[in-house]
Amino acid sequence: MERRTFVKNTFGLSALALVHPQLVFASTKKERINLGIIGTGMRGRSLLGLFLDRDDVKVTALCDVDKDALARAQQMIVKSGKSEANLFSDGEYAYKEMLDRDDVDAVLIATPWTWHAPMAVDAMEAGKYVGLEVCGATSLEECWSMVRAHERTGAHLMIMENVMYRRDVMAITNMVKQGIFGELIHLEGGYQHDLRHVKFNDGINPYGGGVEFGEKGYSEAKWRTGHSVNRNGDLYPTHGLGPVGNMVDLNRGNRMISLTSTSSKARGLHKYIVDQGGADHPNAKVKFKLGDVVTTVIKTQNGESILLSHDTNLPRPYSLGFRVQGTEGIWMAVNKSIYIEGRSPSHRWEDAAPYLKEYDHPLWIELEEKAAGAGHGGMDYFVANAFVEAVKRDAKPPMDVYDAAAWAAVTPLSEASIAAGGAPMYFPDFTNGKWMK
Amino acid sequence: MERRTFVKNTFGLSALALVHPQLVFASTKKERINLGIIGTGMRGRSLLGLFLDRDDVKVTALCDVDKDALARAQQMIVKSGKSEANLFSDGEYAYKEMLDRDDVDAVLIATPWTWHAPMAVDAMEAGKYVGLEVCGATSLEECWSMVRAHERTGAHLMIMENVMYRRDVMAITNMVKQGIFGELIHLEGGYQHDLRHVKFNDGINPYGGGVEFGEKGYSEAKWRTGHSVNRNGDLYPTHGLGPVGNMVDLNRGNRMISLTSTSSKARGLHKYIVDQGGADHPNAKVKFKLGDVVTTVIKTQNGESILLSHDTNLPRPYSLGFRVQGTEGIWMAVNKSIYIEGRSPSHRWEDAAPYLKEYDHPLWIELEEKAAGAGHGGMDYFVANAFVEAVKRDAKPPMDVYDAAAWAAVTPLSEASIAAGGAPMYFPDFTNGKWMK
Repeated sequence: MERRTFVKNTFGLSALALVHPQLVFASTKKERINLGIIGTGMRGRSLLGLFLDRDDVKVTALCDVDKDALARAQQMIVKSGKSEANLFSDGEYAYKEMLDRDDVDAVLIATPWTWHAPMAVDAMEAGKYVGLEVCGATSLEECWSMVRAHERTGAHLMIMENVMYRRDVMAITNMVKQGIFGELIHLEGGYQHDLRHVKFNDGINPYGGGVEFGEKGYSEAKWRTGHSVNRNGDLYPTHGLGPVGNMVDLNRGNRMISLTSTSSKARGLHKYIVDQGGADHPNAKVKFKLGDVVTTVIKTQNGESILLSHDTNLPRPYSLGFRVQGTEGIWMAVNKSIYIEGRSPSHRWEDAAPYLKEYDHPLWIELEEKAAGAGHGGMDYFVANAFVEAVKRDAKPPMDVYDAAAWAAVTPLSEASIAAGGAPMYFPDFTNGKWMK
Repeated sequence: MERRTFVKNTFGLSALALVHPQLVFASTKKERINLGIIGTGMRGRSLLGLFLDRDDVKVTALCDVDKDALARAQQMIVKSGKSEANLFSDGEYAYKEMLDRDDVDAVLIATPWTWHAPMAVDAMEAGKYVGLEVCGATSLEECWSMVRAHERTGAHLMIMENVMYRRDVMAITNMVKQGIFGELIHLEGGYQHDLRHVKFNDGINPYGGGVEFGEKGYSEAKWRTGHSVNRNGDLYPTHGLGPVGNMVDLNRGNRMISLTSTSSKARGLHKYIVDQGGADHPNAKVKFKLGDVVTTVIKTQNGESILLSHDTNLPRPYSLGFRVQGTEGIWMAVNKSIYIEGRSPSHRWEDAAPYLKEYDHPLWIELEEKAAGAGHGGMDYFVANAFVEAVKRDAKPPMDVYDAAAWAAVTPLSEASIAAGGAPMYFPDFTNGKWMK
């Protein structure tokens, strides 16, 4: 209890809501929510599994143009012993029929990226609470459209950024809010993930085994790889930006002002095709626009710099590359090390593990067992939990439409900066000044 | 011998010259060189110690406006049992008298940064071989002035970048040249060194013990700190850039095209003064322009991106932050780890140590004993050795005036970019096209 009290006192409303909305919003409105899921591919079904474990969620509707994926999702529901969901699969706009139904309170959207914004807008227009999987936007207009739909309808949108709930990230956030790092100065994060086996597969299995993509690919290779063919920018900024942005209070007293992006040359994907499929494979002729490493540097209104790395085409171990640096200390994820002035031995790294244990977030201690087995090291449990609890109360989500818009805006701004030889690009203020409060 | 042969075959001329000029330049001209040193402070005396250990160097002249520093240097010569040097100390231009002398073949310049270029130019005009300590330039014109002096006189300038000779850097360079990382894509380096105890001291001792600088400071605090008061940019780019620039053949088939720089807010130095000296200390009123973390991203002609970090005002462990990433692998210094596709366990970091041993540079194996005890982990021995061997042959140095100009240009370009809100700035081609050969 001491720890809980402490968190209440030091985290402030938004950060507390982030991890446990029920601590903040007193008036529970619903005991159980009716949920529809648009997109029942790998990601949608992974989240579906979490919802099926809960008594407070009834999955009433499923939507996907891929009938096989849809059947697999329905099968999961059946196996769980719950009532079958209504299915919507008749064309790309079948989701609109789902949105017309009264037995859907909220929708989770886990579709290919270009569908995110239009579906989110339509869902808010239909009065649904929206849970939106992460991605970068294809345009600033897309970001604005979501903001406008929210403001017009009052319907909420929660961006489902699971890394906010990574155990080390939450412990470090805890330390940040207690001032252990002093005033924050510089932060880093990114998406450094060798996705070559995701971008290419054999058309049957989701991971590797071939160099097909697009029509001949399966799962993400079907649509995600096309972005690497056509676009050059930080295509996936939120895993890195969300957590460190929260630490510096983006949209809650701070905001991003500008960024510059620089792209390396593009070699990794072509090489993978040649190495795995041979120089004569038709895909060896494809020219990929996405630079292998895209480096973006953001400046905030309060003067912090945020470095984001997007690095998905080369052989490398997975790393989100977090660095949190203030006037009194620094944490880096890649070497699992920390330095706190006055506590660490002078000028030497310390193992971060004891700090992460000491500042472990109470929610992780409380919910560790429930989270065990959930996707991505348990953090998927937390993001799904926060979503459900927020929907039950029709409450403002911990990560809202303004966060979704600002984070996703990094992608088109990054593309524009690279196209302009590294020229700085400026963030719209999607809050129209409300960030100051 | 096998390793040596191998190095000859794979390193190519310039990289080989970098580490051991005598392997390349057949015609030794001098058995012994006469050396003058301008600047006999901490750095100058450290290098003096290395020269005094050698039979092929006679230190014939010393110059410094600080008579105490000069006396300490002369005392070192006396203690070594060698002949006393001629001393030059009569005003800021006393060095010109030294340059007039025939018993000086080469000069080593280890003075405050703003003196580097004018002294180097004057020395080349006097026909001396110049060894120049590292720093960033204050202007592009300064860089050009050195290039022009070299081209007008034929006199050589070697930039004394010791990190080129760091043992891990040389091993990784060895791996790069053998293609172990595939085609290089993205590189990182920087100067991440908590210099607060260097920028401030008690006016008596060089490191810490007070918050004085400028007139009341001692050693580097006397002059270096003023740059943090007045300038915002990457003030010290060469330790990070030199090694990774060599790996991507800058000025030898490649060159830097443009950069963008972003600065965080400036908090660390003011906080240090207040914490150590009290809020009433006169220096607590000083406004420092240097952002605590300055992030610079460079694009090269051949498409690599190079990230440089300048981070000298905050509590943190020392790290030059090297990262070398190609189509077949990645090395990072901070976690001492490496990943080589097909050799490392899939998607997992390996300890870099066995690789660094396997690819340890033959020169390190050969000269390890001689280098032991030399400054900065032994690498000072190598840079001093390369300088002396190059001077003996009046040969083109491994790191020449074009490298000095290009690397140092990062600083004024970085300042301009920050001043322009992150706008890209463009590198002059100091070689006028010769980089292509």
